[in-house]
Amino acid sequence: MSNPDHYSQDVMAGEVLAPYLHARAADFLRGLRLHRESGADTAGAEEAARTLRAAARRISGTLHTFRPLLDPVWADQLRAELAWLSGTLALEQACTSRLVRLVDALSRLSSGSGPVPAARGERSAGLTVGAARAGALLERQLTLARTRAHSAALQALGSSRFHAVADAVALLASEVPLGPAGTAPATEVLDGPAAVAERRLREAVAALPLTRAAHPYNAEALALSAGETQDAPWHHTRLLLRLHRYASEVLHTGGEPDTVLYEAARALDRHRDAAEAATAAATAARTPRIAPATAYALGVLHADQRHEVEAARFAFQRAWRNATAPVP
Amino acid sequence: MSNPDHYSQDVMAGEVLAPYLHARAADFLRGLRLHRESGADTAGAEEAARTLRAAARRISGTLHTFRPLLDPVWADQLRAELAWLSGTLALEQACTSRLVRLVDALSRLSSGSGPVPAARGERSAGLTVGAARAGALLERQLTLARTRAHSAALQALGSSRFHAVADAVALLASEVPLGPAGTAPATEVLDGPAAVAERRLREAVAALPLTRAAHPYNAEALALSAGETQDAPWHHTRLLLRLHRYASEVLHTGGEPDTVLYEAARALDRHRDAAEAATAAATAARTPRIAPATAYALGVLHADQRHEVEAARFAFQRAWRNATAPVP
Repeated sequence: MSNPDHYSQDVMAGEVLAPYLHARAADFLRGLRLHRESGADTAGAEEAARTLRAAARRISGTLHTFRPLLDPVWADQLRAELAWLSGTLALEQACTSRLVRLVDALSRLSSGSGPVPAARGERSAGLTVGAARAGALLERQLTLARTRAHSAALQALGSSRFHAVADAVALLASEVPLGPAGTAPATEVLDGPAAVAERRLREAVAALPLTRAAHPYNAEALALSAGETQDAPWHHTRLLLRLHRYASEVLHTGGEPDTVLYEAARALDRHRDAAEAATAAATAARTPRIAPATAYALGVLHADQRHEVEAARFAFQRAWRNATAPVP
Repeated sequence: MSNPDHYSQDVMAGEVLAPYLHARAADFLRGLRLHRESGADTAGAEEAARTLRAAARRISGTLHTFRPLLDPVWADQLRAELAWLSGTLALEQACTSRLVRLVDALSRLSSGSGPVPAARGERSAGLTVGAARAGALLERQLTLARTRAHSAALQALGSSRFHAVADAVALLASEVPLGPAGTAPATEVLDGPAAVAERRLREAVAALPLTRAAHPYNAEALALSAGETQDAPWHHTRLLLRLHRYASEVLHTGGEPDTVLYEAARALDRHRDAAEAATAAATAARTPRIAPATAYALGVLHADQRHEVEAARFAFQRAWRNATAPVP
């Protein structure tokens, strides 16, 4: 990880924090404009939602990490509203990508990589039929969930609650409500909160079973009924890694983006996506009156996605060790 | 891999081959005695079958590899009979170990490694019920297959065909029917057949997708309908590795056993066992009128065992590279 830049004695903490928040607020407003202009253009609407969410996450993370330098009442309130907004906007995209992930996996699982001899073709017909039905079932369930999420997002973006958030962010584009410490020299007060974010991340990673994850094919993530208990510390680490990355962005404004932990963050995203896809497969398998062949294909799919969870842990520990290895 | 020992000019090939075959024939006869003495003692009967099979495999492999030095008509005929015998004896043990592997996997898959929160306990109840039913179904099917295999083995061991094999092996304990080349100097004719066995093994390994297997979590073995086509070259390599190991035993009689490829051989055994267990899970899932929860658990189990197939390929490529890496 990188050390924060150092500032000259006469730069105040607010003078570092404010430009970053101004820029992210401007991103948010651009996302809002994109949303209003998108109309029936699905790709445009997705782009708008992505922009809004990325800006909301960064503002919210900054308010959290640098809270000691800001007006705490204002920061806590805006953060809660941004969390509501990005949570609402994230659902539709999550349903879409979950469906894509599961349908891709089903197609990989049920198609061979070579010519299928006649005798085998017959024997694997059961899986092919089951996979097709499982795909149709997942498509039905996740499309329904996505439609609901889409309506909820549209409703949120039209609500007075959202307009209040948008007004608060519009203000933030020109003025940041600092606390007393915000006017202290940056060299004295800016590193502390960023160091706390980094320490929390390091502690969370230290508590993960990385040695086990480094051993390929440990089959740990396949203990199906332990899945969610096992996954929680990894999901928590994902959020702490994000906070750390955003804090680094604040400290390095104008410099190169901090890409050193990008691979590690991607692995934890994949971990989360695979875990949720596995849960969706398990949920679909509890649909009443499905055919055994459908249930079988969903079982294969569930194990496949838990296998992906394990692979993501392996990828994370490697990326983390690479990123944090002492430079020789 | 190791070079064969070298013999002085006056040692004939038959003088190296014969003591090895005598010793293996004696092992076979000891296995036969164990079998006759075992009666209702299951552990004793298993030990007897294991001894008979190990001796039969080694005699058969030696007859195959060193055929150019032996009476070829006699060698081919005895080899065919030994293949029949060890195939028949192997089935019962295969059913037992397949059942143990699948029941262990089900118990690992359906039990978590921590306390199960109430809400989750409820959600995973479906899997637990399904796993219990799948276990019962597999137990029924594999126990039936094992009982059949047991009867077939007993019948084989009481048959006149078996008595003819036993007589032939008893003769082999004192006399080996050599061909003309068997009386040539060992230094001239013994290395050739062993080198052919080694070359066939190396060629088979070179044709395996080892680079892909070296990349953990490549998910290759999970392309379910391609399973059997994919597996064949690995199974074939397993047999060639065995022939190579037995040829090394012949050449190193009296010396240390050739353990350098032991890990690689174990990985290929595990590959075969997992592939067959996956097939057994898939077969059980085609049982008519099973509950969706049972089919689901069998799907999870199938994917888990294909995951084991992939893990065994990873282990093989590592063991192979370690065993064949040039000594620095």
